[in-house]
Amino acid sequence: MQHVALTIDPAFRIGEVDPRLYGSFVEHMGRCVYTGIYEPGHATADGEGFRGDVAELVRELDPPLIRYPGGNFVSGYTWEDGVGPREKRPARLDLAWRSVETNEVGLDEFTKWTRKVGSEPMMAVNLGTRGIEAAQNLVEYTNHPGGTYWSDLRRRNGTAEPHGIKLWCLGNEMDGPWQIGHKTAEEYARLAAETAKAMRRVDPSIELVVCGSSHQRMPTFGTWEATVLSETYDLVDYVSLHSYYEQRGDDRGSFLASGTNMDRFIESVIATCDHVRGAGQHKKRVNLAFDEWNVWYQKRFAGPDNLDVATHPRLIEDEYSVVDAVVVGSLLISLLRHADRVKIACLAQLVNVIAPIRSEPDGPAWRQTTFHPYALTSRHGRGVVLRVEPISPTYETSWMGEVPVVDATAVHHEESGAVTLFAVNRDQHEPLTLDIDIRSLPSLAIGEHVALFDEDPDATNTRDNPDRVTPTRLADVKTADGTITAVLPALSWNMIRLRTA
Amino acid sequence: MQHVALTIDPAFRIGEVDPRLYGSFVEHMGRCVYTGIYEPGHATADGEGFRGDVAELVRELDPPLIRYPGGNFVSGYTWEDGVGPREKRPARLDLAWRSVETNEVGLDEFTKWTRKVGSEPMMAVNLGTRGIEAAQNLVEYTNHPGGTYWSDLRRRNGTAEPHGIKLWCLGNEMDGPWQIGHKTAEEYARLAAETAKAMRRVDPSIELVVCGSSHQRMPTFGTWEATVLSETYDLVDYVSLHSYYEQRGDDRGSFLASGTNMDRFIESVIATCDHVRGAGQHKKRVNLAFDEWNVWYQKRFAGPDNLDVATHPRLIEDEYSVVDAVVVGSLLISLLRHADRVKIACLAQLVNVIAPIRSEPDGPAWRQTTFHPYALTSRHGRGVVLRVEPISPTYETSWMGEVPVVDATAVHHEESGAVTLFAVNRDQHEPLTLDIDIRSLPSLAIGEHVALFDEDPDATNTRDNPDRVTPTRLADVKTADGTITAVLPALSWNMIRLRTA
Amino acid sequence: MQHVALTIDPAFRIGEVDPRLYGSFVEHMGRCVYTGIYEPGHATADGEGFRGDVAELVRELDPPLIRYPGGNFVSGYTWEDGVGPREKRPARLDLAWRSVETNEVGLDEFTKWTRKVGSEPMMAVNLGTRGIEAAQNLVEYTNHPGGTYWSDLRRRNGTAEPHGIKLWCLGNEMDGPWQIGHKTAEEYARLAAETAKAMRRVDPSIELVVCGSSHQRMPTFGTWEATVLSETYDLVDYVSLHSYYEQRGDDRGSFLASGTNMDRFIESVIATCDHVRGAGQHKKRVNLAFDEWNVWYQKRFAGPDNLDVATHPRLIEDEYSVVDAVVVGSLLISLLRHADRVKIACLAQLVNVIAPIRSEPDGPAWRQTTFHPYALTSRHGRGVVLRVEPISPTYETSWMGEVPVVDATAVHHEESGAVTLFAVNRDQHEPLTLDIDIRSLPSLAIGEHVALFDEDPDATNTRDNPDRVTPTRLADVKTADGTITAVLPALSWNMIRLRTA
Repeated sequence: MQHVALTIDPAFRIGEVDPRLYGSFVEHMGRCVYTGIYEPGHATADGEGFRGDVAELVRELDPPLIRYPGGNFVSGYTWEDGVGPREKRPARLDLAWRSVETNEVGLDEFTKWTRKVGSEPMMAVNLGTRGIEAAQNLVEYTNHPGGTYWSDLRRRNGTAEPHGIKLWCLGNEMDGPWQIGHKTAEEYARLAAETAKAMRRVDPSIELVVCGSSHQRMPTFGTWEATVLSETYDLVDYVSLHSYYEQRGDDRGSFLASGTNMDRFIESVIATCDHVRGAGQHKKRVNLAFDEWNVWYQKRFAGPDNLDVATHPRLIEDEYSVVDAVVVGSLLISLLRHADRVKIACLAQLVNVIAPIRSEPDGPAWRQTTFHPYALTSRHGRGVVLRVEPISPTYETSWMGEVPVVDATAVHHEESGAVTLFAVNRDQHEPLTLDIDIRSLPSLAIGEHVALFDEDPDATNTRDNPDRVTPTRLADVKTADGTITAVLPALSWNMIRLRTA
Repeated sequence: MQHVALTIDPAFRIGEVDPRLYGSFVEHMGRCVYTGIYEPGHATADGEGFRGDVAELVRELDPPLIRYPGGNFVSGYTWEDGVGPREKRPARLDLAWRSVETNEVGLDEFTKWTRKVGSEPMMAVNLGTRGIEAAQNLVEYTNHPGGTYWSDLRRRNGTAEPHGIKLWCLGNEMDGPWQIGHKTAEEYARLAAETAKAMRRVDPSIELVVCGSSHQRMPTFGTWEATVLSETYDLVDYVSLHSYYEQRGDDRGSFLASGTNMDRFIESVIATCDHVRGAGQHKKRVNLAFDEWNVWYQKRFAGPDNLDVATHPRLIEDEYSVVDAVVVGSLLISLLRHADRVKIACLAQLVNVIAPIRSEPDGPAWRQTTFHPYALTSRHGRGVVLRVEPISPTYETSWMGEVPVVDATAVHHEESGAVTLFAVNRDQHEPLTLDIDIRSLPSLAIGEHVALFDEDPDATNTRDNPDRVTPTRLADVKTADGTITAVLPALSWNMIRLRTA
Repeated sequence: MQHVALTIDPAFRIGEVDPRLYGSFVEHMGRCVYTGIYEPGHATADGEGFRGDVAELVRELDPPLIRYPGGNFVSGYTWEDGVGPREKRPARLDLAWRSVETNEVGLDEFTKWTRKVGSEPMMAVNLGTRGIEAAQNLVEYTNHPGGTYWSDLRRRNGTAEPHGIKLWCLGNEMDGPWQIGHKTAEEYARLAAETAKAMRRVDPSIELVVCGSSHQRMPTFGTWEATVLSETYDLVDYVSLHSYYEQRGDDRGSFLASGTNMDRFIESVIATCDHVRGAGQHKKRVNLAFDEWNVWYQKRFAGPDNLDVATHPRLIEDEYSVVDAVVVGSLLISLLRHADRVKIACLAQLVNVIAPIRSEPDGPAWRQTTFHPYALTSRHGRGVVLRVEPISPTYETSWMGEVPVVDATAVHHEESGAVTLFAVNRDQHEPLTLDIDIRSLPSLAIGEHVALFDEDPDATNTRDNPDRVTPTRLADVKTADGTITAVLPALSWNMIRLRTA
């Protein structure tokens, strides 16, 4: 059996984990909202029409932050359509997904629901078809106490206290030609700057995320960020990154190396931020909001131009396999590894639409395979990320070149002294022995090893078999001479929790 | 008598005539709509207030397409003003023509009327003062079946089925500094691209015309088209051309050469389209929509800045002479000659405003001189345009240099085998003998020759003498040895129809 | 005692004074409107709620022109909010000053009030968050007689005759990053051009002021004007200048040289205007509108980002000293010296906000020190400005280098033959003898000398001592041998009126 060795030493820190790294995303798309989180006639629905079974799974997932209402949807959205008496709300033709938006759920309902499930909204403004005024009015509506037109309208609509939404996205993927109201870098930079300024004047306490590239392969990647940040640097707090991964053809080895790609993407955007910081002689740092990431089989989606108009149709309801879950776990390791600069991340999306939670109209809700690494990392990956540099065998991929077979990171919970190690074994056939040098933390001992793997790496959880794939507790952790040893099954995601004796 | 020779051979084809080459144009300008096509109190008015006498002449003209509602008018137009209960429609100050627009006629009335006269609307959206949202809502209003705000509004306004408008102009003459909301090429290119994308998302079946230059003498001619097409190539189907011709001073020879100028204009725009196609490695071809053309004595018009505000005032009600009609006929020959690339053309405008049809409030309607070549070419110029290269004497013009005395084209109706030849004799004093070599079509024989000419080339049709100028049937066509011979009168437009024996 | 000599000769003329040089400015900011000109419950309030005591002082000041409604305020203003029934007007969160705008006073009330105090409005349109349509509708509302939507709305709102507002600002300080909807020079140039064109189409008789730089120290100063004027030259009549002056630290000498700075600023903008005129081969001249100027202690103001939201809070209610009044008088001399090109100027602002008039809620109104030189120059500085070149000692300043101790100008009232000389003595300690050569106007004799000075140059007028500082009439003017002699007190502003004997 091959060996991998790594050392855990609290003297070598990357940074504190911002809990917002475990955010999620609800877009008015497909069945994420309607028959996803919201379904008035459902057996478990609460008084506001939100599904109790889905809410229960969301609470289990416990995202500290849920991005809303898009996504591409927001670039044609009129937020005023979604507030006030429901019988007066118009049905709109949404062009992002060629869907009919009934506006039954709007920001008031959504915000109350996020609080009910223990989360916070991260709100996006429409910079596709709208501009400064719509955005400033929205912040006034959500965050101003009262005494002005829009804040008083919120009060009349039933919310006396401000929603107090602290985190805002300046549009969504504005570099994408598919986006309604797509902008050039120069156009977006100017609009984002002026909108940011006005929004901050309404509520100086808010934080703002400016759009970076929609993905790394955009022809404007890098120059977009440089142009946008040069114009907006002092007005924004974060720049966004989006990335989706999928297996192409039979090339599972490359797919398993997705985390390596994410590392490079993150490091490239950090470089651009710091380049603009230097050139502009700015003091503060702009950090990263990886506010859309996941496994997504985009090749299965024909694109919005080919959709017939429908009301909350089934869109991109990908069913995730064990391999997909291992990749999701691996991407979380990449995010943690950059905890010093990546402060926010949103698994896209929360329910049904490429989501960890699935639900059926009038039917049950269940956890996809990807639910598990996401929930466990979120629950246990809090504290200080340590610098972990595994000495691992490598394998060759067509996409990312030579990549390590094992990727890992560790989070040190300083109060309790516990260390949680997250690791993936990308070897599709062989288990690996992992040796963890803990001489710098001699009191660590008790180890718990949970792993996600399966004889059938293509196994999924379905309505009829919702718990086909779940994490397994392994009783293989051994301690000897300052070294902890465990075995990582073939093609597995692993969490090893070490507590003080 | 001088001779001109030409050969007709069906093996040398330019292309199929798109019937939309015979389109027209109704702008909310002057008396084109009000007291033009629409006059509720008129003796011939139908139940909707549209004039029956004018409609009858329109049916005779039979334009397959009528562009609407502008023209410069559209750049300040709020289409929503023109729908819904008439008593709630606002009177607007139109800045294009400094007129009061009562909005009595709007798109619902106009569209129903076009269908009643056997035509189709070609609708323009406002890209002067408005943008993406107004345009997408308009397409939703006209073309979406129902179940959304704007389509349901159309239904409430009395039109259950979608209007199904297939052809749309992305603004009008946006390169012109006189235009309300004039744009630079870069500004317009971006707005047109984003608007096109949104409109297509509403209804993927529509066709779009992007604005080319307002005329050939614009300082940005050529570069405008290149910039705009580079940004919009894959999103649009046609680029527009506009051109108006008039006699300057005594120089009738130059005026008669207008077709030569139109040829060069068309060929220049084709070159730009194909240049962008090549540079951008695009597959499809963008074709041409010559959506404003006519004879117009612009020097008689002081310009909108010098108009007093009025309600449907008399504006540019040019009275056309025999010479003007010969030039109109000649311009139709130019359009036909480029039938492979010019798919749409609109004689501007339909009634009263530089129009083939005139009408008086509470009075009669009649045909101008230009009505005749336009109506005859439209009726008989359907089929495949053949490559016709007359061997003609030439004359010198100050404007276009050396031009042929005779210009001609031929259309082959493949089913019936008939060939229709259109020809102008630009010699102001002498008739010409035309020899047509038809050896490749030996069955052709029976010839009908209709010509427009007059002893007084300045003669016009007026209210009191509405049929002063009409086409004359000439009995001069002779057949011998595979050659058909006819005599073209001095300063004349001619149609020679050859049928199989 | 030092001597200064100057010659008055009507053969050497600078130009006719445009009375609009003595304009003022009312912004919806702080207490300029509310508890300034308008306070319904005040003991002196008229039937419309405007204060009688303040109106009386305004009439005494007699500004021919009052700019309205901003300033920075206008860049987020929706003018429609301020018209129509008061009970329906929304309370808006103004982001320029983080204030709640109740919209109790809008353009109808303001315009009527300006006429009541004998003035005219100079109206600004919002080019921050709004564009062409809002501006053209506003001109239609104020200036179109009737028969259209917006003009009829004015009539319904109680104003049958058009307001006839002749002078309009195309936004305010659009070069300033602090401005809501700030623009680059290119962006503003295009928007200003298109808005200007539309506004002129509504009413061709209006005059337009395009935004120059917010102040001379803007990094884009000069290039902004050149870019903006190149795009708008033929569409506008004036370019704006703004400048505020204050004493920095102990450096009173530099502060007293503010007029020298204003001279250079004006001359620089003239150069840019004429450069664009030459390069563009334009015929007309664009003149200057110095539509914000005053002494303002900006260092005392923390900026709008640091304000708590409030309703008409006390903002920048600077209390002016004798020195400040001398500087204001000196700046008026600079404006008069450029009467050939500076046609409009607005002391910013009229009441409470860095203003010549102060008022207390439920309390009195009074004149600040600066009221006096402004009122006297306005009253007597009408006619033709003569070229006056004092031979003066100089003193060194850290800011402006060597500057003359005495600055002066003279205005010749040609009908009466009277000449009024305005002069400042910048020497903080010594009086000066002024010799005026009037040999070219031998009939001049009777002299009246009014001066503003004080033993305590920091003395101010307060609520409790509103007339602490007032002008003094001095009986020192002597005539001999074609020379008039007077003594200018140390640190003083002086007006010497010479009438024919």
